[in-house]
Amino acid sequence: MSEYTGYKGKSLEFLKTNKISIGDSVKILSDITYSGIVMPRYEHSDDKYIVLKLKSGYNIGLEISKIEKIEKNETLEKIEKNEKLPNILLLSTGGTIASKIDYRTGAVTPVLTAEELNSSVPELAKIANIDTKVLFSKYSENIMPEHWLKIAETVNEYSNSDYAGIIIAHGTDTMHYTSSYLSFSLAGFPIPIVLVGSQRSSDRASSDAALNLIGAVKFLTDCKTNGIYITMHQDENDETIACHIGTRVRKNHTSKRGAFQTVGNDPAFLIVNDKIHKNMKNDFFTINEYTPKIKINEKVALVKYHPGYEPSLLKNIIDSNYKAIIFEGTGLGHIGENMYPMVEMANEKGVFMGMTSQCIDGRVRMTVYESGRDLLDLGIIPLENMIPEIALVKAMWATGNTENREEIKEIMLNRIASEFSI
Amino acid sequence: MSEYTGYKGKSLEFLKTNKISIGDSVKILSDITYSGIVMPRYEHSDDKYIVLKLKSGYNIGLEISKIEKIEKNETLEKIEKNEKLPNILLLSTGGTIASKIDYRTGAVTPVLTAEELNSSVPELAKIANIDTKVLFSKYSENIMPEHWLKIAETVNEYSNSDYAGIIIAHGTDTMHYTSSYLSFSLAGFPIPIVLVGSQRSSDRASSDAALNLIGAVKFLTDCKTNGIYITMHQDENDETIACHIGTRVRKNHTSKRGAFQTVGNDPAFLIVNDKIHKNMKNDFFTINEYTPKIKINEKVALVKYHPGYEPSLLKNIIDSNYKAIIFEGTGLGHIGENMYPMVEMANEKGVFMGMTSQCIDGRVRMTVYESGRDLLDLGIIPLENMIPEIALVKAMWATGNTENREEIKEIMLNRIASEFSI
Repeated sequence: MSEYTGYKGKSLEFLKTNKISIGDSVKILSDITYSGIVMPRYEHSDDKYIVLKLKSGYNIGLEISKIEKIEKNETLEKIEKNEKLPNILLLSTGGTIASKIDYRTGAVTPVLTAEELNSSVPELAKIANIDTKVLFSKYSENIMPEHWLKIAETVNEYSNSDYAGIIIAHGTDTMHYTSSYLSFSLAGFPIPIVLVGSQRSSDRASSDAALNLIGAVKFLTDCKTNGIYITMHQDENDETIACHIGTRVRKNHTSKRGAFQTVGNDPAFLIVNDKIHKNMKNDFFTINEYTPKIKINEKVALVKYHPGYEPSLLKNIIDSNYKAIIFEGTGLGHIGENMYPMVEMANEKGVFMGMTSQCIDGRVRMTVYESGRDLLDLGIIPLENMIPEIALVKAMWATGNTENREEIKEIMLNRIASEFSI
Repeated sequence: MSEYTGYKGKSLEFLKTNKISIGDSVKILSDITYSGIVMPRYEHSDDKYIVLKLKSGYNIGLEISKIEKIEKNETLEKIEKNEKLPNILLLSTGGTIASKIDYRTGAVTPVLTAEELNSSVPELAKIANIDTKVLFSKYSENIMPEHWLKIAETVNEYSNSDYAGIIIAHGTDTMHYTSSYLSFSLAGFPIPIVLVGSQRSSDRASSDAALNLIGAVKFLTDCKTNGIYITMHQDENDETIACHIGTRVRKNHTSKRGAFQTVGNDPAFLIVNDKIHKNMKNDFFTINEYTPKIKINEKVALVKYHPGYEPSLLKNIIDSNYKAIIFEGTGLGHIGENMYPMVEMANEKGVFMGMTSQCIDGRVRMTVYESGRDLLDLGIIPLENMIPEIALVKAMWATGNTENREEIKEIMLNRIASEFSI
């Protein structure tokens, strides 16, 4: 991205004349005085406006012809730590929320120092002292298991810190995969961790970045528990921030701000008008002691069964030496009988096979029908009501910790981090 | 299954003494007089009860010690066609709903003559004359594309009949895959078609079979439109039957009676207390003329992307000469950049690639972010808000009709049967 992406004609000339580039913090005198950051525009925009990201997190378009004066804010406010407030650590991995300017349009410098955060979301400084650390800057579809390890290792360094909690800024696309990995690998971590993202890129007026971040900080300072959570808008309005159990949550809408949903239950916590409401009945972790196991084996396949699924695709997975296969079966946990010979082959080769359902909600029950019982006999293990993607991540973690199939089975059926209900 | 499955000790002796087998229609004198069909029991049941399926569709357990008399009902009532009522054709493919006794426990004879149907759900005879035809008796996880073809070919024979509509009794696991195939292959079919199943097997007191069937018949006789629908309980109570667009519906719970949901919208029709409520705004089919195209190519893969998805699995699909790949991407329609080389290879080989989202709800939008635009450049076609499984079925149908990639693309983006919203 150039320093003028999306600007052309009059608006481009206006910026050049005033020596202003995208990303600059500016003060603008128009009908009233605005202060904010100059944002890039879409390629097909007109040339009459410039877009400004306000401190509130909202973006507005300002008509150039009405601007009386524009000047750069040369310095950001310096933050003093308030000793009376709790300390929070913010780790940034990428995503819209982690960037001053929408990094997805190309401006990839994730400028998330404490000062800049304070500048863009000033409410935060009133509730906590926030230290920030940039781990990487990735589209979340490019977050790979190796990045999960890096995040977990970094978090692990702070298990004995004085932080009240840790925020991980993350792209929304694969946020629930990452939260699951952290839930298993950092089981028993003493302080709460939230992953937070934003559904609307920060160059849009309806950006949810600031409010999700504020909700995350409030949650960490008020929740009085530990665990790994995802904090996002509950719905399309700005009143309620939902805090989901990191192993029971899915992104269920491509674009809505309330895209994340706890499967089969209400969110663990809601933050409504600054107040926190607890819905979670059990502790997040089954164990109290912190026992980090930051390991992984990526040789785990997720097989979504459907009519016409060719068994040879499963054969290829077995031949490629996969250690585990998570089936996303139909209904209560079924796959077609044409798959049985390959399942038998996998079983004989010692591959762990677990069953989940593409229904997403509800428990698999393989003792009800004959076909389920056949699959049990062939060595497939029903995985309660684990969400398929979360079962996949758990199996990657389990096979990273042991190669013994009986132990893998034991780990998969041992409720560690609220990954299935009891 | 034997003629006494699940019975033992006293209950087995009781049945043998009275020369009664599972499946027999009997009259029992106890506290009151019961009439129904003797059902199998679970293997671990006690020996004090026999289970009777009543005409209402509900099952009850009757204590043997309180039974004064049991006798076989030798003949079923003979039905006379009522010339004033509409005619309905019921095609049976299997599933609990299609059997007098739960075929899944082993009694695989799907006895669905009009007489037997009338006997088990007597309400039906008051609203329609129902002709029945058994196509096959399959667990729906064993329904394959070849069965879709058989169903479509059979339905096609009745395009000029005097039936008001057609019911397809079907197992619930893959019902929405089948309804989608029929929607595309039988586009414009002049009379309405509903697929109907039941979530609770008929040997359970809470069986939804009878009410779903009654709802289906009411819908067909009252809906005044055409299209392919799925008719099931709306929720856990027996008051509302929902009628879903066959290309916009998913089984979203493993066991609940209200497991089927229209994605991102209310059901097309509701049947509440015998009255039909229409919610659907557009016609089901975009075309008015009936143009059956009963073809299929099974060489279509559904690739659910996740962190750690190994690109070599995609390579295997390409090397196996698949004609189309439907990606179930993340968020707005993304896959990791580690997949790009394989996507490029597929594109060069002429494979059609379409993008859907594992969010299930919401539209893919690949022009918003750089990664989406990269994928567009690599030849992936965004498939609006089509549900991944339905996009898979449509691609199987499209590639069955043409090998030309441009034509496949055109078909995939041409709204035929309400498969995406406009």
